Amino acid sequence: MRGNKTFPVAAIQMVSSISVDANLRRAQELVAEAAQQGACLVALPEYFCFMGRRDPDKLAIQETAGTGPIQDFLAHTARQHGIWLLGGTLPLQSEESGRIYNAALVFDPAGRQVARYDKIHLFGFRKGDESYDEAVSIKPGTPIAKTFDAPFGKVGLSVCYDLRFPELYRAMGEVALIVVPSAFTYTTGSAHWEILLRARAVENQCYVLAPAQGGKHENGRRTWGHSMLIDPWGEVISCLPEGEGVVSGDISLARIDEIRLSLPALRHRTQGIK
Amino acid sequence: MRGNKTFPVAAIQMVSSISVDANLRRAQELVAEAAQQGACLVALPEYFCFMGRRDPDKLAIQETAGTGPIQDFLAHTARQHGIWLLGGTLPLQSEESGRIYNAALVFDPAGRQVARYDKIHLFGFRKGDESYDEAVSIKPGTPIAKTFDAPFGKVGLSVCYDLRFPELYRAMGEVALIVVPSAFTYTTGSAHWEILLRARAVENQCYVLAPAQGGKHENGRRTWGHSMLIDPWGEVISCLPEGEGVVSGDISLARIDEIRLSLPALRHRTQGIK
Repeated sequence: MRGNKTFPVAAIQMVSSISVDANLRRAQELVAEAAQQGACLVALPEYFCFMGRRDPDKLAIQETAGTGPIQDFLAHTARQHGIWLLGGTLPLQSEESGRIYNAALVFDPAGRQVARYDKIHLFGFRKGDESYDEAVSIKPGTPIAKTFDAPFGKVGLSVCYDLRFPELYRAMGEVALIVVPSAFTYTTGSAHWEILLRARAVENQCYVLAPAQGGKHENGRRTWGHSMLIDPWGEVISCLPEGEGVVSGDISLARIDEIRLSLPALRHRTQGIK
Repeated sequence: MRGNKTFPVAAIQMVSSISVDANLRRAQELVAEAAQQGACLVALPEYFCFMGRRDPDKLAIQETAGTGPIQDFLAHTARQHGIWLLGGTLPLQSEESGRIYNAALVFDPAGRQVARYDKIHLFGFRKGDESYDEAVSIKPGTPIAKTFDAPFGKVGLSVCYDLRFPELYRAMGEVALIVVPSAFTYTTGSAHWEILLRARAVENQCYVLAPAQGGKHENGRRTWGHSMLIDPWGEVISCLPEGEGVVSGDISLARIDEIRLSLPALRHRTQGIK
């Protein structure tokens, strides 16, 4: 047992627009609000900095890894508040001129980048009037699970559509927290978002922090919202159905230990089922 | 597309007692009811034939594979009604004298055994007065996913606690139906049963048929029930909260095809994430 220490964390819900400047200003306000509430780790949603009119529009605002206004914003904001900050996703240059990586970056309280995860699974969906094909403008990341060490333990990184692929989370090993910055559509979100988030928490016996886009966007898209923090027993600690705001709650190491002791499912995993 | 053909299936919910004879008689009645409703495949729950007072009691009623009254009952009942019959679980002899395999057997409409799955993951739980440790009397099956071919497609086999291990279902490959005969406790069932069943349906884009034990048993245990059939979009088609009975509904190949075409998540799987 590791005592009763708890670690406040927060997810930011946004309704991002087509203006990077406006989105960064809004993100700045919401992160400040979360930091004032005491959060030691704050996570921004997928596409927090930009929801373009057309899928390829994101190519125009791509940054080279390590430099650019969006990365500067993240480093500065983390340092300003002395928090761990996850920059939901931003477009980073890839080896292909026509496609970017949809990258989640993590900055420590000193403003140093400590982790990068490029979204592996790319959303494709077609039903009635709705049609998405992220692979047109996004290059998938190398299929390797990415984690980083926060003060409360290991944190596993994933993005949105990755949520449908349980094997990614199993490849992370034992983590205290999974983050899932997202922009689920209204259609698929209403059907699957909460079920899948809670299942990942239950089967991996860890917290799940899921910051999302949630509302009607300037680009015509409608996203599901319902940013939430879930505990390792699968219970929803807090949730914001729609609109912009902060979802917060505590990570308790004692709660993780208690659940893993009473139901030792992680020890019961069989490696290499064929 | 494979047309609009549908295949009625059914899950039997029981509140099994310590009498094998009484349980088989009750199973006979419930399977007959499902067959009269037109089910072409019927699944009995875990421990349908016996819920002993103490965990090791099941050793006393174990059968050698291929012979014994419980297996005879299953073969006869499948042939009698001309159905595919899954015998939730029964105790089959293992190489160790003190432990049995907790086996699910499948019989075809001619009464021939066509598949056997020995439960791989063994439930252990300890909280307050509640304590379970299946590994004391059960030997785990070889970690290989088991499927069989039904008239509507491939069916994947699992048992109860296996539900917490998504990798087992991924190892089945693409299936039309997953069956999960179970005896979830009231405590863990109320927290996790529906979430995990629906997540398996959503992430594997297939039907899930989950026959369960559901009520207060002679041996003092209380099980969660909520036997259900779930469609490949994660919607609950039918559910019986508690008590004995039949849960039925249709498997539609067109529904599977429609979902996999609009959201091709199974094609988006990345093999070998590290």
